[in-house]
Amino acid sequence: MTINKQILLASRPTGAVTPENFRLVETELPPLAEGEIRVRNHYLSLDPYMRGRMNDGKSYTAPQPLNEVMIGGTVGEVVESRSEKYKQGDHVAAMFGWQEYGTSTAPGLQKIDTTHIPISAYLGVVGMPGVTAWYGLNKIIAPKPGETIVVSAASGAVGATVGQLAKQQGCRVVGIAGGAEKCSFVEHELGFDACIDYKSADLATALRDAAPTGIDGYFDNVGGETLNAVMLHANPFARFAICGAIAGYNGEPLVMKNPTLILISRLKLEGFIVSEHMDIWPEALRDLGTQVATGKLKYRESLAQGLAAAPEAFIGLLKGRNFGKQLVKLI
Amino acid sequence: MTINKQILLASRPTGAVTPENFRLVETELPPLAEGEIRVRNHYLSLDPYMRGRMNDGKSYTAPQPLNEVMIGGTVGEVVESRSEKYKQGDHVAAMFGWQEYGTSTAPGLQKIDTTHIPISAYLGVVGMPGVTAWYGLNKIIAPKPGETIVVSAASGAVGATVGQLAKQQGCRVVGIAGGAEKCSFVEHELGFDACIDYKSADLATALRDAAPTGIDGYFDNVGGETLNAVMLHANPFARFAICGAIAGYNGEPLVMKNPTLILISRLKLEGFIVSEHMDIWPEALRDLGTQVATGKLKYRESLAQGLAAAPEAFIGLLKGRNFGKQLVKLI
Repeated sequence: MTINKQILLASRPTGAVTPENFRLVETELPPLAEGEIRVRNHYLSLDPYMRGRMNDGKSYTAPQPLNEVMIGGTVGEVVESRSEKYKQGDHVAAMFGWQEYGTSTAPGLQKIDTTHIPISAYLGVVGMPGVTAWYGLNKIIAPKPGETIVVSAASGAVGATVGQLAKQQGCRVVGIAGGAEKCSFVEHELGFDACIDYKSADLATALRDAAPTGIDGYFDNVGGETLNAVMLHANPFARFAICGAIAGYNGEPLVMKNPTLILISRLKLEGFIVSEHMDIWPEALRDLGTQVATGKLKYRESLAQGLAAAPEAFIGLLKGRNFGKQLVKLI
Repeated sequence: MTINKQILLASRPTGAVTPENFRLVETELPPLAEGEIRVRNHYLSLDPYMRGRMNDGKSYTAPQPLNEVMIGGTVGEVVESRSEKYKQGDHVAAMFGWQEYGTSTAPGLQKIDTTHIPISAYLGVVGMPGVTAWYGLNKIIAPKPGETIVVSAASGAVGATVGQLAKQQGCRVVGIAGGAEKCSFVEHELGFDACIDYKSADLATALRDAAPTGIDGYFDNVGGETLNAVMLHANPFARFAICGAIAGYNGEPLVMKNPTLILISRLKLEGFIVSEHMDIWPEALRDLGTQVATGKLKYRESLAQGLAAAPEAFIGLLKGRNFGKQLVKLI
């Protein structure tokens, strides 16, 4: 019998997430039924949206049930198949969650080609975070050459992709990230025009310096005071793709201080969830996959080793301790 | 010699507008130069945007200069012409401001046909306020039949038009207005499905009752707590046309209490100024003019008598004392 390690949601956080909100269990894997496949997960993706799922309140998706395996994207390899559609050795992307093995009749699974693209990239720049960046930038911000685009959480999976895609389109790109090391990476590795370290700079002053002609587009991953500061420097007709509000995930009150700027500067703010725009995924993934395979799009990963490390890695992600796409290596 | 009465901006308000911010002067009209026309203004339009112009701070337009005639839309009749394009008796819409006579070489003037449309309507439903309603509703909210649309300042020139147009498109329409008399007009004369009296109702509860399936579109003329309450009841993918923020025109701080709802409910908020969308004016005015001429679109006017009454009427408008489109009758 094979043992499957799983991490369940043990309790809902009140405020910050703690390790006690999770519970590691071991279960025996049952034999496969006809039509099922078994996947050994190689990587688990940790993403900020999971924080919202841990709450019981109103959100855009149903809450994660207690005492069930935490939701999450995974990539892995088929180790046993009783399905005609999959054979042993196939690589798949799935939503098996925080566990070592996934068992499924395979709806919702996606076969992935790891010849030119590393398997882990399918959880990042060639996966949900990459498509999130692609959609928000191209469909909401719709930048024009010469415009100035700002993105927060700029060294993360989404932010890094937003900035590189905007640079390709002839924009001036300003990142916001936490710490000198991340900012150095954003400027020198990813090629942004500037990166503001929100931990050391006065954001309002730094934005004025980094975006001397004003801000035309903002890809918002954090909300809160960063959003307030960007609004003050927004040009008329600036577009804001509202993708995340990590600053408020623990229930801190985040207010928009100057909503009248929406009128004064004729801003457009639009919230979105990429899973509701499945029609653009094929085009986006083709574009992103080609660019990763040819080395045009850079990305960085933070790896936690082993399933048991997932809770601490997730808590670190919410505090910005990750550097690039946060993954848990499971094998 | 003919005497022209004019009202100038004498000083900028600190907080609420007072009569002392204005000064009435009388000047002699000079003889017309070649190419000029002289218009006797019949009506002056008073609009909330004028409050923003009275400030010196950053806004979307240049401030109204001190000691000059207050800006404003007018309709009137050509009383003397040295232009080939206009003859005595022509009716024109113009931006002659707060004065009895306008003199111009006629750029920016618009000849208007008063055969089937009352001349004053060109300052309201067949003018800037009507086109504002038309643009925000059709181009930003873009309602679908069966959706619920909410509009604030519902008995005003813009709000009344928004609601009637939305009703024509098969929507459930909920107005918000101040006082039982206005609400009765909105429900029984304009035909909205419901109207909430924000002065007597608890807005959150009233919105839940009046929009039992949630709010899909909001045409915002006021900002502030009304906007906050509507956001709480917005359905996923609701569209907010941000047209005015009269609640904050005197500098009261207005915060958006739950900006995270933009993400959670995938809202789109878009500020606009109708004068920046001149391309849609002909289509909108054709539509609105036909509907007024055939009695399909209803509107109400508040008339102040004589130019000297303009300051008090404007102060009343900012306090919601007007009932329908606020005009000053000049003749």
